[in-house]
Amino acid sequence: MMIIMRESATDNDIDHLIEKVKEVGVDVHVSKGAFATVIGLVGDTIKARDLPLATFPGVERVVPILKPFKLVGREFHPSDSIVDVRGVKVGGNNFTVMAGPCSVESRDVYLDIAKFVAKTGAQILRGGAFKPRSSPYSFQGLGEEGLKIMAEARDVTGLPIVTEVMDARDVDLVVEYADILQIGARNMQNFTLLKYVGQANKPVMIKRGLSSTIEEFLMAAEYVVSGGNNDVILCERGIRTFETYTRNTLDLSCVPIVKKLSHLPIIVDPSHGVGRWDIVEPMSIASVAVGAHGLMIEVHPNPEEALSDGYESLKYDNFETLMKNVKQAVRVFGKGM
Amino acid sequence: MMIIMRESATDNDIDHLIEKVKEVGVDVHVSKGAFATVIGLVGDTIKARDLPLATFPGVERVVPILKPFKLVGREFHPSDSIVDVRGVKVGGNNFTVMAGPCSVESRDVYLDIAKFVAKTGAQILRGGAFKPRSSPYSFQGLGEEGLKIMAEARDVTGLPIVTEVMDARDVDLVVEYADILQIGARNMQNFTLLKYVGQANKPVMIKRGLSSTIEEFLMAAEYVVSGGNNDVILCERGIRTFETYTRNTLDLSCVPIVKKLSHLPIIVDPSHGVGRWDIVEPMSIASVAVGAHGLMIEVHPNPEEALSDGYESLKYDNFETLMKNVKQAVRVFGKGM
Amino acid sequence: MMIIMRESATDNDIDHLIEKVKEVGVDVHVSKGAFATVIGLVGDTIKARDLPLATFPGVERVVPILKPFKLVGREFHPSDSIVDVRGVKVGGNNFTVMAGPCSVESRDVYLDIAKFVAKTGAQILRGGAFKPRSSPYSFQGLGEEGLKIMAEARDVTGLPIVTEVMDARDVDLVVEYADILQIGARNMQNFTLLKYVGQANKPVMIKRGLSSTIEEFLMAAEYVVSGGNNDVILCERGIRTFETYTRNTLDLSCVPIVKKLSHLPIIVDPSHGVGRWDIVEPMSIASVAVGAHGLMIEVHPNPEEALSDGYESLKYDNFETLMKNVKQAVRVFGKGM
Amino acid sequence: MMIIMRESATDNDIDHLIEKVKEVGVDVHVSKGAFATVIGLVGDTIKARDLPLATFPGVERVVPILKPFKLVGREFHPSDSIVDVRGVKVGGNNFTVMAGPCSVESRDVYLDIAKFVAKTGAQILRGGAFKPRSSPYSFQGLGEEGLKIMAEARDVTGLPIVTEVMDARDVDLVVEYADILQIGARNMQNFTLLKYVGQANKPVMIKRGLSSTIEEFLMAAEYVVSGGNNDVILCERGIRTFETYTRNTLDLSCVPIVKKLSHLPIIVDPSHGVGRWDIVEPMSIASVAVGAHGLMIEVHPNPEEALSDGYESLKYDNFETLMKNVKQAVRVFGKGM
Repeated sequence: MMIIMRESATDNDIDHLIEKVKEVGVDVHVSKGAFATVIGLVGDTIKARDLPLATFPGVERVVPILKPFKLVGREFHPSDSIVDVRGVKVGGNNFTVMAGPCSVESRDVYLDIAKFVAKTGAQILRGGAFKPRSSPYSFQGLGEEGLKIMAEARDVTGLPIVTEVMDARDVDLVVEYADILQIGARNMQNFTLLKYVGQANKPVMIKRGLSSTIEEFLMAAEYVVSGGNNDVILCERGIRTFETYTRNTLDLSCVPIVKKLSHLPIIVDPSHGVGRWDIVEPMSIASVAVGAHGLMIEVHPNPEEALSDGYESLKYDNFETLMKNVKQAVRVFGKGM
Repeated sequence: MMIIMRESATDNDIDHLIEKVKEVGVDVHVSKGAFATVIGLVGDTIKARDLPLATFPGVERVVPILKPFKLVGREFHPSDSIVDVRGVKVGGNNFTVMAGPCSVESRDVYLDIAKFVAKTGAQILRGGAFKPRSSPYSFQGLGEEGLKIMAEARDVTGLPIVTEVMDARDVDLVVEYADILQIGARNMQNFTLLKYVGQANKPVMIKRGLSSTIEEFLMAAEYVVSGGNNDVILCERGIRTFETYTRNTLDLSCVPIVKKLSHLPIIVDPSHGVGRWDIVEPMSIASVAVGAHGLMIEVHPNPEEALSDGYESLKYDNFETLMKNVKQAVRVFGKGM
Repeated sequence: MMIIMRESATDNDIDHLIEKVKEVGVDVHVSKGAFATVIGLVGDTIKARDLPLATFPGVERVVPILKPFKLVGREFHPSDSIVDVRGVKVGGNNFTVMAGPCSVESRDVYLDIAKFVAKTGAQILRGGAFKPRSSPYSFQGLGEEGLKIMAEARDVTGLPIVTEVMDARDVDLVVEYADILQIGARNMQNFTLLKYVGQANKPVMIKRGLSSTIEEFLMAAEYVVSGGNNDVILCERGIRTFETYTRNTLDLSCVPIVKKLSHLPIIVDPSHGVGRWDIVEPMSIASVAVGAHGLMIEVHPNPEEALSDGYESLKYDNFETLMKNVKQAVRVFGKGM
Repeated sequence: MMIIMRESATDNDIDHLIEKVKEVGVDVHVSKGAFATVIGLVGDTIKARDLPLATFPGVERVVPILKPFKLVGREFHPSDSIVDVRGVKVGGNNFTVMAGPCSVESRDVYLDIAKFVAKTGAQILRGGAFKPRSSPYSFQGLGEEGLKIMAEARDVTGLPIVTEVMDARDVDLVVEYADILQIGARNMQNFTLLKYVGQANKPVMIKRGLSSTIEEFLMAAEYVVSGGNNDVILCERGIRTFETYTRNTLDLSCVPIVKKLSHLPIIVDPSHGVGRWDIVEPMSIASVAVGAHGLMIEVHPNPEEALSDGYESLKYDNFETLMKNVKQAVRVFGKGM
């Protein structure tokens, strides 16, 4: 940490700050410039992290030097993490497609979709049993009944299942059925929930929050890993901007940056990212191109009948085309699938 | 709802859509323009809300006409709601200041602050026992011990207390102690939590999410009210933008707009809104000027020692000045305090 | 400037950087921490400003310490600047209302509005002769004819006039008529235009760009002042965010922050800032409360007939009410008007 | 256009609005719903575009149905436009790489870079002679001298040149030298400049503004085309968001959406889009994948010596690798290059 003092800071201000820092066992290095004095913290500066240095008299600004995440950082763990989901490897040189409808709506429709996406090459089934909906009057998901239908689809297809858990109270229930616990974008900073899934014995997939920086995204993962659960998958799904032609702005630059900063796998959800089925395919191919470890795609045989997010779901034939082109792109860009 | 069809929509597309809409019991009104056909839904259009009309063939765009909120809307309830918090009235012609530290850190410090802000004219005590922190390594709050300290401060000062509840599991515990249950910005769309506090017998204060629209903000309140709890207070606390001189951008225009749309009281938290103590006072006076029903202010005797958000806390003398000027502004702008 | 080196930086990287910095005549101060080496530049560090230090091998990040603006900064000029506009003082302890229609549409309507706002207490007339319109098919303003009408209104009312200049080619023409040259939000970083008005002998009012940081806003002013024109007025007019209930998000925190950083006067344009007439008044009072030096308000006798921005214009009776309340607020908050 | 009336609108309000609309020669279609009356404009609704209908009494909201652009829209011109730049085809099935340094700094360095990028397969040379810089104290470009150096590089390599024109005053000068006139992001809504280049006999490349919607981006192109110049190339270069790990957020979804809406070619500038050289390559491949018609890449032999934007420039060896991978991606995704 570097503390930049105001030009008007007095010697007392400087001495006072140095004293407080030394009290917590951190050493300092003082550099007096023509216009400003800068105090660098040296040694085990983590001890000083909770000092509210910005509030000390004479302080202009505090500049952190160390990144706030550790366990999820590449410095700590240089090689790619690979998350094993019932035998399906996510991360490293693998490319994984998770597909299915937004919500589980009925047994028949879900099984039909599951069989179709399995046949078409998806490796993991998605589906929502607990749905975060901005209106209390909208369909809220089938709850445990939905989880049971997903479990049946896993039995039928052999594919693992990923589904959202919205609340710490439901973690135990969802763990019973799901192979990946999904943390939704609106819950990315639900720290209680992150702590609970950090103690679960199932992989966790965290979606980036609507207005979360990459650093906050990685800190959400740090919560889970610091709880003891190393099996974390990240998912870029678009951030909120002023643009209205798309539902969100899919930030594909997030993928190569996360891969530099962290060893965790990162996939992309273009369906929510853009919110319109008609450009899901090019955004999927682009996700392969930027080095994503996988995709999460919404599929529905009849989006007109979908109870949520129908507008962003691909029909069967479009999903087939997408998979063909994704597989080709994965081959060209050198990953297995 | 109006459905705007593409220029290329066929008669079949139009007939198909009309048929589906009529199936759910809604009537239509068709308007064929030079370039586009528009289908207006008439009658009890709420029945058609869950039809994914945007996905129907030939549809260009769906334009909602009714607002998505009802119970919190002014049309439903034209006069201002007044929330009674242990005798303190929030809303209507009242102006209420909630003050205290960001976190409850120790009994002695908290009681000292509580007595000071009570003496200075605050009507409600704030303080965090459960703290949402972006790092798992930061101070997370004292939990129930913090709640007990707050309850003691209430006994000593006679002021009601407001504190955050972060998780549905903790609602029962927090209800035991708190007079207002605060939903933090990061949990504004934690719909499970909103449902739980909708069943609590205590007033709820909802902070606007970092990237929430005003409509989503009101829909969060709709969740609580539709659960049966009418005592909801809204709190504008800044939205995330590209600006870096402030921690967030405090959106004061939210206040008069919410007051047009809703009967619920709305207060402003300038401390978090700007994230720097040195402009909290002008933003507080401005909050009075735009018609807010109150303020939430961070106060700490010694921000250097604060375990969280010290940089945005006012020292005692600055809080005294702020209160003097806020009271004057409230008098001028015609509210009681 | 502080240069933070990566943990992996070699001694060669560090020596190389130090050598390059010394070559331009700047001295360094090296601080080796447990995890990172930090190189502080000392002495006349401005000489090193154009070195692309971030690209040097081993560099993690470059942290500027000095602010990029000088002439507009308060450190350089501690007392408030007061801009004299034909005898009307803008800045310091003065509060100035500029009012009028968005566009000059016809002589009769403009003169009528001018007389009305003059009588109601506005001190400066606004009006657009050159209009930036997002569509080439929209009304583009009357050009020089509009300027002539404004000049006539000045003769009739005695009030100075402010109008936008959109292009360096038009500066000489607009200077002939206007008392303040307005730089529109979309031209805030039209650096050629800024240089031209920096050489004009008329005051300049710069509107904040739609996505401009406060620092960029001040740097736009720095362009004008560094060209030799000290008479610059800043105008906050809202930034672009995701919110749709308002046209822009009026950032009132910009006012106290600019006043800390700069000696220049800053006014607020709530009409464009929120884009809806029905909350212009509360946002105006709030602008007084945060310490703005004035307001810019759109007024139109019959917004239904306005050729641009009718929806944000106040009718005469609403403007009268606004002026009454603004004057009261100015008295309470201690400025002259 | 659809006009949605408030529930409280009177019959008088409705009749008044209908009368005004009919006065300009547009017919209406009235639909009275249970909660709201909607008035649809039919016939040649463009005539009503300048009526400020939102300001009429009783109006809740005005919903445009037609898109505001015409000449650049695909409906008007279904096949892809191909812009001929001295024999280099941009658009359609072609993929074009524009490369070079951010600024022209010296004859020797520029010629060296030009020869290198030509040899490596770039088809157009980029370079800035007039530079928009946020500080008046930064290097502002060599002006006409820079244009002469670029022209010499064209003679030496045979490649056409693209360079920015910042001001209407300079259009004639830049036209003398350049093969493509670049409109920078900060000038995307400099409507005067857009009109001038709309009359130039050279192709124009428009960069998306930092906070411009896709619709505004297309309207900027509409300005140029409506001036008579059909040779417009669009360039996505990132929008401003809250994320700080990248300089801007490159919005790749803009590419497929623009291709749906417009016949104009669209390329991507990942160098400015992300502002860090280390992820330019993956973002370039992704740009190919989403269907861009080309790339604009910054190259510098020694970014440490660059006078602007060194941090985002690729060194020679990295540019060679990028070109190899881009060519492969172009082959796979089916375009010529």
